[in-house]
Amino acid sequence: MDACAEQPVLKAAQLAKLASTSLAGLSSEQKNNALLAIADALEEKAEAIAAENHKDMEAARIRVDKGELNESLYQRLKLDKAKLHGVIAGIRQIASMPEPIGIATLARELDADLNLYRLSCPIGVVAIIFESRPEAMPQILSLCLKTSNAVVLKGGTEAEKSNRILFDTMQNAAARAGLPAEAFALIETRADVKQLLNAEGFVDLIIPRGSNDLVRFIQNNTRIPVLGHADGICHIYVDKTADLKKAIAIITDAKTQYPSACNAVETVLLHKDVLCAILPTLCKTLQSYHVELRLDPFCYSQLEKVATEHGVEMSKVKRATEDDWSTEYCDLIISIKSIDSMQDAIKHINKYGSGHTEAMIAEDKNSFQEFFAQVNSAGVYLNASTRFADGFRYGFGAEVGISTARMHPRGPVGIEGLVSYKYKLLGNGHIVGDYTGARAKQFTHRDIPTEQN
Amino acid sequence: MDACAEQPVLKAAQLAKLASTSLAGLSSEQKNNALLAIADALEEKAEAIAAENHKDMEAARIRVDKGELNESLYQRLKLDKAKLHGVIAGIRQIASMPEPIGIATLARELDADLNLYRLSCPIGVVAIIFESRPEAMPQILSLCLKTSNAVVLKGGTEAEKSNRILFDTMQNAAARAGLPAEAFALIETRADVKQLLNAEGFVDLIIPRGSNDLVRFIQNNTRIPVLGHADGICHIYVDKTADLKKAIAIITDAKTQYPSACNAVETVLLHKDVLCAILPTLCKTLQSYHVELRLDPFCYSQLEKVATEHGVEMSKVKRATEDDWSTEYCDLIISIKSIDSMQDAIKHINKYGSGHTEAMIAEDKNSFQEFFAQVNSAGVYLNASTRFADGFRYGFGAEVGISTARMHPRGPVGIEGLVSYKYKLLGNGHIVGDYTGARAKQFTHRDIPTEQN
Repeated sequence: MDACAEQPVLKAAQLAKLASTSLAGLSSEQKNNALLAIADALEEKAEAIAAENHKDMEAARIRVDKGELNESLYQRLKLDKAKLHGVIAGIRQIASMPEPIGIATLARELDADLNLYRLSCPIGVVAIIFESRPEAMPQILSLCLKTSNAVVLKGGTEAEKSNRILFDTMQNAAARAGLPAEAFALIETRADVKQLLNAEGFVDLIIPRGSNDLVRFIQNNTRIPVLGHADGICHIYVDKTADLKKAIAIITDAKTQYPSACNAVETVLLHKDVLCAILPTLCKTLQSYHVELRLDPFCYSQLEKVATEHGVEMSKVKRATEDDWSTEYCDLIISIKSIDSMQDAIKHINKYGSGHTEAMIAEDKNSFQEFFAQVNSAGVYLNASTRFADGFRYGFGAEVGISTARMHPRGPVGIEGLVSYKYKLLGNGHIVGDYTGARAKQFTHRDIPTEQN
Repeated sequence: MDACAEQPVLKAAQLAKLASTSLAGLSSEQKNNALLAIADALEEKAEAIAAENHKDMEAARIRVDKGELNESLYQRLKLDKAKLHGVIAGIRQIASMPEPIGIATLARELDADLNLYRLSCPIGVVAIIFESRPEAMPQILSLCLKTSNAVVLKGGTEAEKSNRILFDTMQNAAARAGLPAEAFALIETRADVKQLLNAEGFVDLIIPRGSNDLVRFIQNNTRIPVLGHADGICHIYVDKTADLKKAIAIITDAKTQYPSACNAVETVLLHKDVLCAILPTLCKTLQSYHVELRLDPFCYSQLEKVATEHGVEMSKVKRATEDDWSTEYCDLIISIKSIDSMQDAIKHINKYGSGHTEAMIAEDKNSFQEFFAQVNSAGVYLNASTRFADGFRYGFGAEVGISTARMHPRGPVGIEGLVSYKYKLLGNGHIVGDYTGARAKQFTHRDIPTEQN
């Protein structure tokens, strides 16, 4: 308690933890009313929000001109009215989605009058550390409210004024709708993050949204579970049964549509049986999108033979090194490797991949079943771009991040990723002593309807 | 790789990781045949297993006589034929249970010919560190095989010979049934555990089964996720609407039926409205089971007034200190506290509890709904003993441990706790570029049958 008094962030996390208990007891109606009140409040404050965002933009412009901030970060800072209306529509959509808490995933009679249920429940307190894009915050806060989680938010300094007015507007609206204000906290200085990383017992999950370095720093400096991924090294494996037109279109999309995204492809694995047929056209297409090519020795030698006739600029093609297989370029660079069999592709992916998303291009769906079973990544696709790995595209309404962890929550994390579960046992004076020893009662272990809990 | 050569356990973990890929590709039939072959092999070796166990018992007897080993550990070491037959029956039961891998928990059309599925999948490599009871190993190995997880086992030195013959018998039978032998490893020295804790990238989950100190040591010395609980501080809250007979029977069972179990009750919270009615009889009953009572000031003063007339030995009753509320006694000791309201009980449990299992004794089921929603423990019971928190009693077939984590796997962990999930996306050349910009295609996001994946 004394430690908390001197550490305002720890104090805020402690209050959020206490408030999370009340949140857990809210009805669907109370939560959805609060979400609608938040949407209305943001709509009313649209002018003021735009004005505050404008101040952040002006301050950032000066830093861009000085070379302290890069242009793409500056662009992401912008929250114009169109974007804000998108956010508001998103919040109303979240309000209209089905209740995620208290859903039974198991209902079993253990014995007469002794019924066990496994029900979804909130995680508790979720801390989210995000950079730049101010519209991320209202989305995340709304997802947490829908799932009855208290939330501690830490935004980037460059979006400070935007975050403050968005947060105040939302917190006030939620409080007016009867929710505890302490369930939502916004913290602002960099020093505060360290307090947050030490808030074990008060914070149950940390979600960093930002650079790989930020994620790695957080993973290495806290014992609280961290949802996220430091790297997104996605692969596309072109099988011997691939439709090569599909392969080229998918690889081009996965590399060029948004190269800095975590679900962009970094390495293409080409089965030797189709290598000669696809390599020249693939390389020419990628070069037309200004993609730098890094080829393994076999691909390099094969391409070299036919480069001129296919119009590939061999002078711009590099030789891949061992490091290339474990690098997330976040840029218009791609590595290409020849593979003798699907099993070799699986081995390469499981060895060098980051467990994010991989695609196989093949017309033989039986082979894909094997590929799917053996590749241990959060997403394993057939004939589709790795760029589909995204909460909106999956239909989750919104996402708080993408997890490359082996376990729940895994992949794009929306509402379902923000819930846990607990067991409810309804008895009528049942004791374990009656189920042991010589005259032990027997359990019935019979599935029952989920509704009666 | 060089590091692995010098560190045999790291090498074994690396081989298990590679073998886990083949395990993930096994059919239900292959896995169940292997389980049945294992059961048969254990049956055939029953005499030899008993003989090896007898050697462990003799060695342990000498250590007990010297005072190096306690009697209860010695008792748990025993694996007689009846116990072994129970284990074998359990393995056959696991073989007959439904396939846990590849089960869809989401099936959604994103657009025409673009279908998303969320399917259960293995975790990868599970390392289990266990003490004493040799029958734990075949149970755990069978659960891992059923869930297509590779497994690295570390047993206690006192059960060394029993573990070795059990492991060799099972590994050989699995290998004869066509499974990769490297998917199962048994390590034996204490130094090895440190290598295991550093095997990040090869081991995906560590399950320690043993003392609180062992669990805490492992949690504090690895970055690999740890399933388990250091403490089991379970509460029983007696509401003002409680049936007091049920309350006394349940508290007695939860404290005395197996006091060293993690799901035994440590603290009883008595609502002030029923305190005077229940306290004397409760205390007399518990004393008749030789339970030491530690009471808060109010309970102590109330009991003192009526102790003689109710036959309670006041000289044996202690005053509880602040430490008592956060202590797992693992013994015939119980703390009792007076509570003004259900909300105070919830606050006490969320503050001092370990998130394991709590019970409310009440006839008012509506109040329980509030209690259930707001108490953030893996199990929250109404009118039943906390001792029901157990994989066998829940009908999970067997359990590898009980998790007090906030997220999956939580509570008693059986087959379902040993699986994760991944997303399968089946397309036909779909690219994300078609779903962005002015002429963006729209997602359909329509639920579809799970069977077609």
